[in-house]
Amino acid sequence: MIQFDFNYFMDEFIGSEHGIAKKDIDELAPQCDAALKRMDDEKAKGLLGFLELPFAGSIVEDIRAFKATVPWCDTVALIGIGGSALGPQALKNALADIYLNELPDTDRGTRCRAYFFDNVDPGEMQSLLKIMHIPSTLFLVISKSGGTTETNANFAILLDAIKKHTKDYKKHIVTVTDPDKGILRQIAKEEGFVSFPVPANVGGRFSVLSAVGLVIAEFLGINTYGLLKGASSVVQRYYGNNVWENAPLLNAAFHYLFDIKKNKRINVLMPYTRKLYLFADWYRQLWAESLGKRFDIQGKEVMVGLTPVAALGTIDQHSQLQLYLEGPHDKVITFLKLKGFGTDIQMPQFYKGKQELEYLGGKSLRKLNEFEEQATELVLKEAGRPNASIILPELDEEAVGQLIMFLEMQTAYAGYLYNINPYDQPAVEQGKRFTFGLLERPGYEDYKEKFVKGYVKKDSYIL
Amino acid sequence: MIQFDFNYFMDEFIGSEHGIAKKDIDELAPQCDAALKRMDDEKAKGLLGFLELPFAGSIVEDIRAFKATVPWCDTVALIGIGGSALGPQALKNALADIYLNELPDTDRGTRCRAYFFDNVDPGEMQSLLKIMHIPSTLFLVISKSGGTTETNANFAILLDAIKKHTKDYKKHIVTVTDPDKGILRQIAKEEGFVSFPVPANVGGRFSVLSAVGLVIAEFLGINTYGLLKGASSVVQRYYGNNVWENAPLLNAAFHYLFDIKKNKRINVLMPYTRKLYLFADWYRQLWAESLGKRFDIQGKEVMVGLTPVAALGTIDQHSQLQLYLEGPHDKVITFLKLKGFGTDIQMPQFYKGKQELEYLGGKSLRKLNEFEEQATELVLKEAGRPNASIILPELDEEAVGQLIMFLEMQTAYAGYLYNINPYDQPAVEQGKRFTFGLLERPGYEDYKEKFVKGYVKKDSYIL
Repeated sequence: MIQFDFNYFMDEFIGSEHGIAKKDIDELAPQCDAALKRMDDEKAKGLLGFLELPFAGSIVEDIRAFKATVPWCDTVALIGIGGSALGPQALKNALADIYLNELPDTDRGTRCRAYFFDNVDPGEMQSLLKIMHIPSTLFLVISKSGGTTETNANFAILLDAIKKHTKDYKKHIVTVTDPDKGILRQIAKEEGFVSFPVPANVGGRFSVLSAVGLVIAEFLGINTYGLLKGASSVVQRYYGNNVWENAPLLNAAFHYLFDIKKNKRINVLMPYTRKLYLFADWYRQLWAESLGKRFDIQGKEVMVGLTPVAALGTIDQHSQLQLYLEGPHDKVITFLKLKGFGTDIQMPQFYKGKQELEYLGGKSLRKLNEFEEQATELVLKEAGRPNASIILPELDEEAVGQLIMFLEMQTAYAGYLYNINPYDQPAVEQGKRFTFGLLERPGYEDYKEKFVKGYVKKDSYIL
Repeated sequence: MIQFDFNYFMDEFIGSEHGIAKKDIDELAPQCDAALKRMDDEKAKGLLGFLELPFAGSIVEDIRAFKATVPWCDTVALIGIGGSALGPQALKNALADIYLNELPDTDRGTRCRAYFFDNVDPGEMQSLLKIMHIPSTLFLVISKSGGTTETNANFAILLDAIKKHTKDYKKHIVTVTDPDKGILRQIAKEEGFVSFPVPANVGGRFSVLSAVGLVIAEFLGINTYGLLKGASSVVQRYYGNNVWENAPLLNAAFHYLFDIKKNKRINVLMPYTRKLYLFADWYRQLWAESLGKRFDIQGKEVMVGLTPVAALGTIDQHSQLQLYLEGPHDKVITFLKLKGFGTDIQMPQFYKGKQELEYLGGKSLRKLNEFEEQATELVLKEAGRPNASIILPELDEEAVGQLIMFLEMQTAYAGYLYNINPYDQPAVEQGKRFTFGLLERPGYEDYKEKFVKGYVKKDSYIL
């Protein structure tokens, strides 16, 4: 199992000015119990689909059956944004070869290449179209609502390209969307596109273990059952436990207390391998969008929110560590550590006789990585900077599944401690409406007018 | 020229609770003048090499002359970390094709592929070695001091591989390091490696316009003279000007005031194209390591520092925007906008008759990107969230050179306003010493002992 090492969150190690005391957690027990109860209640109401996904493995068989019908596919192109792309990208980097697309066919084997159309950028799209071979590419259009502008814009252009370069465009398109509602579901039915569901009770940022992440994972040779098994083991181990026996709840409690008692609202997630760096981007959405809320569930204005920051060891020791050690006491750092790298490389004898270099001979990259991470923990501890670790035994499917569920449960619990709704994102609608107005979408004329009135600038304030 | 649009930093637009007033800047004029004077003084003492790099174009001819001697090179592999890698990576993504490595040879032309060994990770190194062809690869070893552990570790392993796979390993290695000092300079001399200098008065994070960035840029087909020309034009336009006529100083003043008057210490840099996303990572080092300081130049404890955050439009509208709009008032956002994308793609007719989709037909990706960015500015403004833009006319070498110098000058000025030294990084040495101790490097035995004494944990705090 993955482990949660919170030693250097504690006052015993980093001092009482910046550390959390056992009794702080104990005093929070009533709110933690209330969080457990709220999760129970919402789960009983069928609202928490993300907790059920690990036990819904039958979708894997559907995906595999479909995969067997497209033997010509050597590339998957995902069209999606936000919750429809960040999870899939994290899975690719963590569990497929990080340079998969460039591997020679002999090394790539039956695994597909993967590309992502997850932004609105004509330059990037042209670059991607130059390197892709559409006749052997399957396009995965992912949008829970079906109404995502960026996704539909990219789909519009790519649909045209698919029609031009294939004999039967319908075979090249798979949709992942709401099982019943939305324009993407409607089109899939009318066109006869193969389609997989995102359960209605699973929000975009909690959807990576649904078809959103599992379809592309299967095409990348990732063991999707292992992912689900890992995630289910976290639910089974922690669900309903009290705070001292529930690592996701305990970590939520720490972050909540660091905010309200210690004024630390910047949360750094720092994996020590690039393979987990995009995982930190997935976490950024989960944490920011779930917890950044103006109103609590009673409608009281609270303006809470923790700012997630993605960092990467060892690189950010040469970039962010100076600030983390000497800057304001406003951060909480969590390392993602691997116990095993699955591989290692020894350094050979290196410029023997030069004392600045020869000490490296015979050491290994894996050990150096471990030493650097531990040294960073220690210097942060000595500077009174709270830091914890989530430790993965190996970077494999089970561990990643565990990590996903750990952070999703932690996020939900944190939302409950703040007494907010962690599953909505009410503030982002207004910007979408302005965009519709500017695109002259019928029904949004008012927003174009409001935009023109609001988006005013003084030339003298442009230098 | 690039432009700095600070309309929505001003109280007139976002209100006096969160905006800055003209008079706030006016009242800061004495400190701004002192900053100008300090820059003058330090420049006169020869300390500010980064201001001179744009005028030191003769190195380009040296690089080009060298390049002509290695016609067999189709790949450059950079070995470096922090300031020796972040700038080169930013240049590659911004100015070469973002998917350059995967382009077919016909599209890639004479441009080299580029790979980066910038971390300590046996898994990543093995992946890279699988996709590289060493006999046609030039290895660029970059370390100003020569003593960077991660760089030397990777070099040790790769040197061995180069010796195995090439006839004359010395032709495959180029070093970029201090012109006189350090072990890497010494080895380069003894081995006869081609070598380019990092001027002694240029710190790592300010070195992208030295050989650190220019060598690989030349091999990627980037117009390095354009980069230098852009950077020099910013020095010429702004150097010595008072705050209202000096955009980098003005932006430094805004960020300083947002910190001390408005308690906003999180600075988001949000480009609206993935091509500039790694540029935000380069800025993260520049801003964090320069400004995160415990002591001011008089030795008084101040613990200042602004936390840089890299974000990416349009993607982070679906990830971070909810937090930026509704969370705590602790952020200052700067967009990087392109006036021209150099290209565009029209959306074709798209499911005519379906009102949720057909409005996209005939619109362009470039316009959609622009609309989304403007809508985001407006909703932030309406929520009282300060946001400004740095506007690039096109994503070309001159504009990128301007952007680099703009942010470097801004960082230096900000350090002066905080009365700290923006050019050192005193806190990161201790962690390096612990790592040396753990690696059993002679002379660091004490640090191994100190590590063992300090790195203690309770098992009961690991769940």
